[in-house]
Amino acid sequence: MTQRPQPARRPAEARRPQETRRPHKAAASGPALRLIPLGGMGEIGKNLYLYEYQDTIILVDCGLAFPDETTLGVDIIIPDISYLRARRSAVKAVLITHGHEDHVGALPHILPELPGVPVYASTLARGLLANKLKEFKVTANPLRPLDPGGRLEVGPFTIEPFRVGHSIPDAMGYAIHSPVGTVIHTGDFKFDQTPADGKTADFAMLAKFGAQGVLALVSDSTRAEAPGYTPSEQVVGQAFKGIISSAPGRVIIATFASNIARIQQVLDAAAEFHRKVAVVGRSMEQNVKIARDLGYLKFPTPLLAKEEIARRTKEPLVIATTGAQGEPMAGLAKMANGEHRNVEIQNGDTVIVSASPIPGNEEAVGRTIDNLFRSGANVIYHSIAQVHVSGHASQEELKMMLALTKPKYFVPMHGDMRMQVAHGRLATQMGVLPSAVFIIDNGTPVEFSADGSARRGKPVEHGSVFVDGSSVGEISEIVLRDRRTLADDGIVVVIATIDARTGKPVGRPALVTRGFLNGDEDNKLVEEAITIALKAIQHKGDRGAEVGLIKAQLSESVSRFLGKETRRRPLVVPVVVEV
Amino acid sequence: MTQRPQPARRPAEARRPQETRRPHKAAASGPALRLIPLGGMGEIGKNLYLYEYQDTIILVDCGLAFPDETTLGVDIIIPDISYLRARRSAVKAVLITHGHEDHVGALPHILPELPGVPVYASTLARGLLANKLKEFKVTANPLRPLDPGGRLEVGPFTIEPFRVGHSIPDAMGYAIHSPVGTVIHTGDFKFDQTPADGKTADFAMLAKFGAQGVLALVSDSTRAEAPGYTPSEQVVGQAFKGIISSAPGRVIIATFASNIARIQQVLDAAAEFHRKVAVVGRSMEQNVKIARDLGYLKFPTPLLAKEEIARRTKEPLVIATTGAQGEPMAGLAKMANGEHRNVEIQNGDTVIVSASPIPGNEEAVGRTIDNLFRSGANVIYHSIAQVHVSGHASQEELKMMLALTKPKYFVPMHGDMRMQVAHGRLATQMGVLPSAVFIIDNGTPVEFSADGSARRGKPVEHGSVFVDGSSVGEISEIVLRDRRTLADDGIVVVIATIDARTGKPVGRPALVTRGFLNGDEDNKLVEEAITIALKAIQHKGDRGAEVGLIKAQLSESVSRFLGKETRRRPLVVPVVVEV
Repeated sequence: MTQRPQPARRPAEARRPQETRRPHKAAASGPALRLIPLGGMGEIGKNLYLYEYQDTIILVDCGLAFPDETTLGVDIIIPDISYLRARRSAVKAVLITHGHEDHVGALPHILPELPGVPVYASTLARGLLANKLKEFKVTANPLRPLDPGGRLEVGPFTIEPFRVGHSIPDAMGYAIHSPVGTVIHTGDFKFDQTPADGKTADFAMLAKFGAQGVLALVSDSTRAEAPGYTPSEQVVGQAFKGIISSAPGRVIIATFASNIARIQQVLDAAAEFHRKVAVVGRSMEQNVKIARDLGYLKFPTPLLAKEEIARRTKEPLVIATTGAQGEPMAGLAKMANGEHRNVEIQNGDTVIVSASPIPGNEEAVGRTIDNLFRSGANVIYHSIAQVHVSGHASQEELKMMLALTKPKYFVPMHGDMRMQVAHGRLATQMGVLPSAVFIIDNGTPVEFSADGSARRGKPVEHGSVFVDGSSVGEISEIVLRDRRTLADDGIVVVIATIDARTGKPVGRPALVTRGFLNGDEDNKLVEEAITIALKAIQHKGDRGAEVGLIKAQLSESVSRFLGKETRRRPLVVPVVVEV
Repeated sequence: MTQRPQPARRPAEARRPQETRRPHKAAASGPALRLIPLGGMGEIGKNLYLYEYQDTIILVDCGLAFPDETTLGVDIIIPDISYLRARRSAVKAVLITHGHEDHVGALPHILPELPGVPVYASTLARGLLANKLKEFKVTANPLRPLDPGGRLEVGPFTIEPFRVGHSIPDAMGYAIHSPVGTVIHTGDFKFDQTPADGKTADFAMLAKFGAQGVLALVSDSTRAEAPGYTPSEQVVGQAFKGIISSAPGRVIIATFASNIARIQQVLDAAAEFHRKVAVVGRSMEQNVKIARDLGYLKFPTPLLAKEEIARRTKEPLVIATTGAQGEPMAGLAKMANGEHRNVEIQNGDTVIVSASPIPGNEEAVGRTIDNLFRSGANVIYHSIAQVHVSGHASQEELKMMLALTKPKYFVPMHGDMRMQVAHGRLATQMGVLPSAVFIIDNGTPVEFSADGSARRGKPVEHGSVFVDGSSVGEISEIVLRDRRTLADDGIVVVIATIDARTGKPVGRPALVTRGFLNGDEDNKLVEEAITIALKAIQHKGDRGAEVGLIKAQLSESVSRFLGKETRRRPLVVPVVVEV
């Protein structure tokens, strides 16, 4: 399980089914290679893929997802690893493709269940990860170097990481050579021929794997609906230069904290026009420090301390910041709302929002842009200028990946179901047999046998674990359902005091509401509801204090009354106090 | 205030400021014309515009907006008409541009405050409105015909409606001639040269107004960020024919219930390939009936009753339905979830989602599409085929509107702030002076004086009224804030019983939570919280029962404890029962 220089090693034979030049190599039926996604299929984020052969499991990535409007109040979502728990000792390595949260964010929560298992990542990802694991006090897992072009043996597997383009430096895909054949796992990728750091994807390695024979390609579907090519990161650099050259005042550029290449382009463009740069936003400051220490960022001129910004409001500074997704607590939204500690938007400021809204964030991003306009800034954003390019491959690049690797089987990964379907169609256009395309959900294994056949396996335990505050997994569907009801119509608590002996009410019940009525205006309604509640429990003398029954009567009578009067359905919670 | 044939009438002079051929016609300073938006500025929906001259007010449109993630549980949002309430007797007419909810949906809630005021609308809008007002039992307002090319006098105003293109037939803009000049109010519009009903926008009328002199253009900004032209509705008809001609089985087409032209194209395409059509979805069935009765829909072959669908599962039917925005209770989402009464998705079905997601609906639409794929359908949607075109003008059309009307002043309306800013830039590119562009918020009047000058007025009362269940305006910001807290972390109710005389606790307090903890697992935490609560109120013997103080102690102690233990911040509600 160590990394060694790369000798020639021919992986098991694998060919596209329509090639007939060589006879089919029918191996004796033996153990199968199983690919099991526990996250990242039919969804965006929460990436976690298992490759299992006999008693060896390697994991590729271990990411988180962010909540949407159906998971109210949840902080983050991580994969359910019940399947792994039962096979803990088989897990021999975690391979990281790159340092984005949707690929590494679950590690601090999951590694404690896998003590001692080494995590392999390229230099920058290692830097980011070391910082993150330290924050979470996760110390029982060695973090080991594995860089593009490297090589690693793990039990029956030989692993060869290859460089791909993406919106963070040193992103990698993996060639996973197993006894039954080679699987190419792309990770997030694009083919940028002119990336900001000059390091293009390793076409030669991909072509070599294709020539040797690829059993299966497992490939990024995020932009499988987008025709053509994803533009190069250079386009953004040019846009920055054009905007900075003609901006009358300061230029504030918001982007992803981890997009080191984008930040480099900010530094370069500012230097070209002799403007000083400051960086504000905790995560970006942290990432800039890590990237600088590891040599991933070059500073044409030294950074300005962020405390200087308020003292130099007349200077044409360039300010890099976070919050391009409209996150309410990040730099840009705070500036838009006039609440930022270091930066107050002033007339003449130009703000560049260098990102596209992730699905679900459109409204938050729109509001932030509108508020920046209201504050007097000129705002330049994705709809009106090319100030952002995606980090994911479009259709022509996805076809190029298929053309280079020539897989027998194809498994689209990442992205919603419809994107995987679109990607599957590209594969069949490129000659993969429709029956050789596996569109699978999380938990469904694809089993590759030694005889060259592949099939869909029986689903394994999988799912989502909600992390909220300090609790991992304590948030159940019931809690979320209650939160949705609370969010819709609020809550009504009916408190009845009863005589423990007779079950008769003592005084009038009380009623407390939140998120339902506006105190004063609705006093009459509350009084009526209390009377209804009292009547419902008044005639119980004979039967004694059956608390369960009294609760049901309180809840039912008040629910029915309020529903009829208001057409709303608050959560009605009965409380019985026995005295 | 009657509609008459159109005589020649020259409106007050108004010219573009950069034209210098004729001398400036300085009128004696007299009363001003005030345009006051109460909705529709810096937002999408809730359209309501006032034109006020001395003691006459006319309203243009009266629409609703739908809630977003910040207005939890609210059903609809309507404009606050406090400003109008104080001037009720001045309101002489409501002019409707077209029958979409964001332009007419608030009428049932607001007309009861304006009894007797006539509502003017074109034939189809009148049909839809009559139905809606009947449902809401609103009867005190006459609904009067005013069709494209018509004419109406209201006090000092002469009104000339002109035809525009939009995603509903007979949409109109209004030329509002006042003593100080003519305002062109476009309503929602596009310039479709080949619309489905063959009726193009009235370029001649617009050119005539331009030649006569337009004081101000008030124009739709919804797509001011989109370059080029919005494609013609014909493009969609062609796409339908292509898909239907090659679909192996049934074709289910989801679109907006009010898009009569789109439904006509479904009927025509189905007929061309000899397929029967059924319509399912309450609002679409209702609109189809109204449109048919008014002659807006032609049926090449009779509709199939929806009850027939389940009996003819082998026939290549075409089914038109609602739910193209992913609305959970509409036809398409129910089909996607296998819950539709009439239609069960089967292998070989083709589903066309003929709409683009409205901002905020992206995730719901995506989920619906994914579920349809999972049910075995082939889904064709906006990202992969041109099965929808917008009803709003893109930049080149917006420029054409500016070129035809040649306004002196320009007021971008509809759409978020950034879209109005983009539209304002188009106007200045077309020669409107930057100082003659008014980007205003709701409630801010633009005042046009008789001397040809214009200025921003003092803001009037305005805002949003939340309609939730049967209550109008009873939902306050406090209720919404509570709902957001409830949605995030749930609620904890602490109930303490105390001796009314001594203030000492009787027994242990009780604790009820919803949306916060999962009952069983957290029993220990609940017990600890109860002990904390008890301790907090135990030593009160000397001071008697100060209920307010006891509540504060309960709430503070439990909040602090739970926050520390769980890192979550539920709403803690203290209840004190005195016995």
